[in-house]
Amino acid sequence: MNLGVVGVGRMGANMARRLQEKGFHLTALYDAQRPVATSLAQELGSFASQSLGEVTAAADVVITVVSDDAAMREIFAAPNDNLLQNAKRKLFINCATISPAVHVEVEQLARAAGAQTLEACMASSITQAREGSLYLMCGGEKSAFEMAEPILQALGSQIRYIGKAGEAAKVKALVNMVMNINTAGLAEGLGLGEALGLDLTMLREVFSETGAASRVLQTDGEDMQNHDHACFFSAAHAAKDSGIALSLGEQEGLDLPLARATKAQYEKMIAQGLGDLDKSGIAQLTFRS
Amino acid sequence: MNLGVVGVGRMGANMARRLQEKGFHLTALYDAQRPVATSLAQELGSFASQSLGEVTAAADVVITVVSDDAAMREIFAAPNDNLLQNAKRKLFINCATISPAVHVEVEQLARAAGAQTLEACMASSITQAREGSLYLMCGGEKSAFEMAEPILQALGSQIRYIGKAGEAAKVKALVNMVMNINTAGLAEGLGLGEALGLDLTMLREVFSETGAASRVLQTDGEDMQNHDHACFFSAAHAAKDSGIALSLGEQEGLDLPLARATKAQYEKMIAQGLGDLDKSGIAQLTFRS
Repeated sequence: MNLGVVGVGRMGANMARRLQEKGFHLTALYDAQRPVATSLAQELGSFASQSLGEVTAAADVVITVVSDDAAMREIFAAPNDNLLQNAKRKLFINCATISPAVHVEVEQLARAAGAQTLEACMASSITQAREGSLYLMCGGEKSAFEMAEPILQALGSQIRYIGKAGEAAKVKALVNMVMNINTAGLAEGLGLGEALGLDLTMLREVFSETGAASRVLQTDGEDMQNHDHACFFSAAHAAKDSGIALSLGEQEGLDLPLARATKAQYEKMIAQGLGDLDKSGIAQLTFRS
Repeated sequence: MNLGVVGVGRMGANMARRLQEKGFHLTALYDAQRPVATSLAQELGSFASQSLGEVTAAADVVITVVSDDAAMREIFAAPNDNLLQNAKRKLFINCATISPAVHVEVEQLARAAGAQTLEACMASSITQAREGSLYLMCGGEKSAFEMAEPILQALGSQIRYIGKAGEAAKVKALVNMVMNINTAGLAEGLGLGEALGLDLTMLREVFSETGAASRVLQTDGEDMQNHDHACFFSAAHAAKDSGIALSLGEQEGLDLPLARATKAQYEKMIAQGLGDLDKSGIAQLTFRS
């Protein structure tokens, strides 16, 4: 089985490395920034395709890991060049965090082209991509899920089939919405703790033993204390993902003040030029020093 | 050693029950609502004091569990009747969640009266009070902490000495601030999940396995899904505690938008007559049905 990967930024590249290591045949790599694809192709002894049509021609299954709704529509529907040219019997596994509706749109376009799609939303980061221990939430036709399973098994340690197209993306949007709120709240707690002169190592320990405990306390708390914001998941991505959830809320007529306040904080980071910091960098908005 | 307990609402009453069970001698119970104290006195074969002065006279150590800053100032400084009359060599263990500055104030008043105080802030709820498994964060003179230790050991499973008066209350305010933010965020996540037609049992499971995981997901998630808001920790208390943290933030000149949004949600509950629901009832603000 020949695999293509479209979007070989940090996540996509590590997924490609992992798949090659597990014996899959990588026949086509593509990135909007071509040098990124050629460099990875060189590293892996693979090929950097010149066009999206070339990716589809060279692969049976194409994994896409692009940045947002616009990029997703671009690769599947741009009139001059897209992945759905001569795509009969191809399978597309779409891993980007995008709006649920766009997954549904893409599934319909693919179906018209005789191809199948599966959304495989990732609730993990770069390290897990490299190690094949991603948490994957899948949406789409059950037949597409079954066809994708050997690849998903190589990429993830937990694979959940959620439901039809768009459903996994909804769950993913909610996971990131809540994660971002907890991150923003933790930042305020540690930032206020610092201002009050408390020992933050002690404070994190107490948080971990009480009602303030959370997964983000484990993953981001120490980084906040140490001002170490090397990027695993950027503030800009956090803003985008909270935005997806807020749009879903708006469509449902729900007011979500915590999600709103969180998105505003991440947008403040972007406005201050801090959008490329890790999401833990939100602590910089509260920490004094 | 004779013990008194001032404030025998749900928490105070359960602490009294536990202490008696562990062999302590309860010689004085007091509550602003006298029938509450007489009823507990009957249950425990103890005495409901008529005045605060009587409590101090009847006990070597007095545990106070009152509702807020005003009640705390009242029991320690009301001109007609308070706990510091003839209080020489008495020890006061103060368990209410109040502003750090009030603990410092009370310590000074007690010192002037020849007494000692210790704040023992509780990061747990009614069940833990009954079982003697409270998480206790203590602030005050080390000598007061050592004197209180046998009692603290009977009440709690984890006892932490944080620092001087007011320090434990700061940590407690931060714990509850972060806990309340996580609770409000979880409510939005589950509420939006419900609106989107997702299976909330599945959604909670995914949350628990991803970056959305938190202690409040474990303690409050299922209750939110089941609309079971029997009160362990009321929305009104949550609003008060977030307010304490926000005041500390204001004093430090910090903007805390998540804490602010959370307090506003709990105040909305109070305004809608839902202040006596458990803090998990915040989900009612987002859930449609």
